[in-house]
This record gives sequence, structure tokens and C-alpha cells, in this order.
Amino acid sequence: MKLIGIAGGSGSGKTTFAMKVMSKLPANKVNLLHMDSYYLHDQPKEFFTKSGKPNFDHPSSFDWDLLRTHIRTLKEGGKIEVPLYDFTTSARLQDTEVMSPKSILLFEGIFTLFDQEIRDMLDIKTFLHVDADIRFTRRLNRDVQERGRSLESVTSQYYETVRPMYQKFLAPQQQYADFIVGEETDVAADILASKLNDFIRDEESMQKLIDRNNFS
Amino acid sequence: MKLIGIAGGSGSGKTTFAMKVMSKLPANKVNLLHMDSYYLHDQPKEFFTKSGKPNFDHPSSFDWDLLRTHIRTLKEGGKIEVPLYDFTTSARLQDTEVMSPKSILLFEGIFTLFDQEIRDMLDIKTFLHVDADIRFTRRLNRDVQERGRSLESVTSQYYETVRPMYQKFLAPQQQYADFIVGEETDVAADILASKLNDFIRDEESMQKLIDRNNFS
Repeated sequence: MKLIGIAGGSGSGKTTFAMKVMSKLPANKVNLLHMDSYYLHDQPKEFFTKSGKPNFDHPSSFDWDLLRTHIRTLKEGGKIEVPLYDFTTSARLQDTEVMSPKSILLFEGIFTLFDQEIRDMLDIKTFLHVDADIRFTRRLNRDVQERGRSLESVTSQYYETVRPMYQKFLAPQQQYADFIVGEETDVAADILASKLNDFIRDEESMQKLIDRNNFS
Repeated sequence: MKLIGIAGGSGSGKTTFAMKVMSKLPANKVNLLHMDSYYLHDQPKEFFTKSGKPNFDHPSSFDWDLLRTHIRTLKEGGKIEVPLYDFTTSARLQDTEVMSPKSILLFEGIFTLFDQEIRDMLDIKTFLHVDADIRFTRRLNRDVQERGRSLESVTSQYYETVRPMYQKFLAPQQQYADFIVGEETDVAADILASKLNDFIRDEESMQKLIDRNNFS
């Protein structure tokens, strides 16, 4: 299995980029894992915002142990049960979603290049670098129009957590990226997909060779 | 033909990156064009340094007309005569080197993403982003050890032209890059080479199809 990390700020287009790559691969060969599913059930109180809400942009809000275990399990060919996080109640649900291992795992999220143990398991590391104003306006549109939040609450959250956490924890991940993509991602998605299709082809040839030898 | 632009500052590893990509492609399918060959015979005096030398880091020091013509000619399947520039005398030599078109053209240099007409001809645009201190020390080692220049002359040239031109003209090219690569380029070179090998394969299949139809 090849594991691809896709990191970047909120509003940088991580999911869109992952979807573009997936659209160029055979659907039965690729999984997409969202880091958002791994928010802690109980996020550490010491990082709560002044207004008493969990700080979703702090690395300590994620369940790193479970993430490391799940990624290792998939790499070793096992199934995992992806947790489901309910953002309306800021809590993990009882239900889970089963994910079976496939040839390619795209792993997207704000801190996918943050943890050294996970980094060491990643075969390709990419970071989406998009200017702060563009990320902010995208987030604003999404949160105000789609989630019915007020302009004021989005702006205050931006200054309270999104912006400082980006500078402190998110941006430094760029040093680990094999390549950085900007706002226009079509060419990069195409190039990355080429490499992944190569890998799928190699894996299939290898499998055929194994099958043939078993039958002989 | 696919045209790949590789930009970045002096000491960012453009040639090394190009060589890595080339090493993964069939040698008879790829050309490497150095932008350095296109320094003007007479560089514009208004951009000369205080010490009266040509400013090799200013875009106006290049022969853009010839560059555009040559790239267009290669794209259209024609041969070109690459000029030879003599850095010891800062002048163009009489001799030229013939380059025949191949499937892939890697075009490396400090301003390969600078000109809009050339950008429009590029199929893939990449920029090597390496921290300024690393670029400086690499340049220092090369110029002092390999070219016998003094520490003082390298340092003064750095502050007089290299650094200000990088900030003013070189760094902004990053906005046009399809992807940006840092100091570690192995994975990016591998991914890019995958895409280029795909292209070479497609081109060969197309050629076979054409050949077959001619014979039938």
C-alpha cells in the first residue's frame, strides 16, 4: 500500500485536491481517510478557547494513538473502524465506519505531516499552500452560507484559533513536504495520479506473478 | 513534445533536480536546455552593478526573443542552434550547439517561469524553493572552491545583485508553479518522471497507430 499525506490549512482545498487525484484512479484501489474523524472525544480543556470551546486547530485535539494504530493497521493489510465525530455536539459517536485496505490511501487533514511516526509511514507528503486571505474567505463562505454561522463568530474564531495555530503548527509542516501545491492544483493532481497509477500497475503485475507461480 | 520549466535561485539545485528526472527517462527521449546559454551578448548597461559588471540576476540580461523563438521551434518539431555563452569574457561565442526535438524538454534556469509567452508554452511548471542561507553557502562553495573567487567578491555580489533580484524577480515566480519542491527532491523527481514516462508511452502508442495505418 502507498500512503499519501495531504496537509494544508482549513480552506486550502485538501478534499478537492484528494477528489481530483481519486477521479484519475480506479475507484476500487483507493481509500480516502479524513483526519477530522480522529478528533478526541474529550478535547484537552487547557487548550479551550476563551469562549470555552474546543480548539479544533490545536494538534492536541486529535487522537494520535488511534490514528497511528489505524494507519499502521492499514499499511499491514488490516481493516480499521474509522470513528465518526459529530461537530454539532463536539463528541465522538458510538458508530464507526469500516475501511478495508486498498492499494492507495489518501490521508487528508490539517496535521497529516505533523507527527513523526505518521510521517515515517507516509510514502508521499504534500502540502497545499494557499494565501491566508483566500483561505479565510473560503471558510467564511462555507461557515456563513452552508452552516448558518454569523460573520462575527467566524471572524473571532479565525483570530482566536485558526490564524495563530496556522502560523505556529500548520505552516511549519511545509518543511516535510515532498512538494507544495498552490491554488491551481490540476497539474499536480495529474502528476501525482500518474505515479499512483504506476504503483497500482506494478502491484497488479506482482500479484499476477504470484498467482501464476501458485498455479504452476 | 512536453515542456517542463524548472525555476529557482542560484544554488537551489535546478540542474541536480533535472538530472534526477532525466535519470529515470529513456535518454533518447529527453533534452535539457539551460537558460544560462541565453545571456545577451551585450547586456544592458543600465542594470550593470556599481562595480561595472553585468547583472546576471536581472531578467533583462537574457535574450528573450531568441529564447521564445527556440522554444516555439522545438515545440513545433524543429531543430535549434543553442548559443554558447562564455562566462569568463561575459560574451556569446560564435559557435552553437544543435538540439533536435525530443519527446520531453526540461528547461532549467532562474527565470524559466518569468515570461508569459514562455509560461503559456510550458506544460508543467516547477519551482525549487530552498532557504536563502543554504543557497548562499552552496554558491559560496562553488564559486570559491571551483572557480577560485574570493570570499569577499562572492559576498559582495550576493548583496549587490543575487539577493535583491531574488526577492524582486525570482521569488514571485512561485505563484505560477504547478508545484514547489524543497531541499529534498527525490520523491518529487520520481513523481514527475512517472508522468513524463506516461507521456512517452502515450506518444509511442500513437506513433505505432499511425505507422500501422500507413502500412495498411
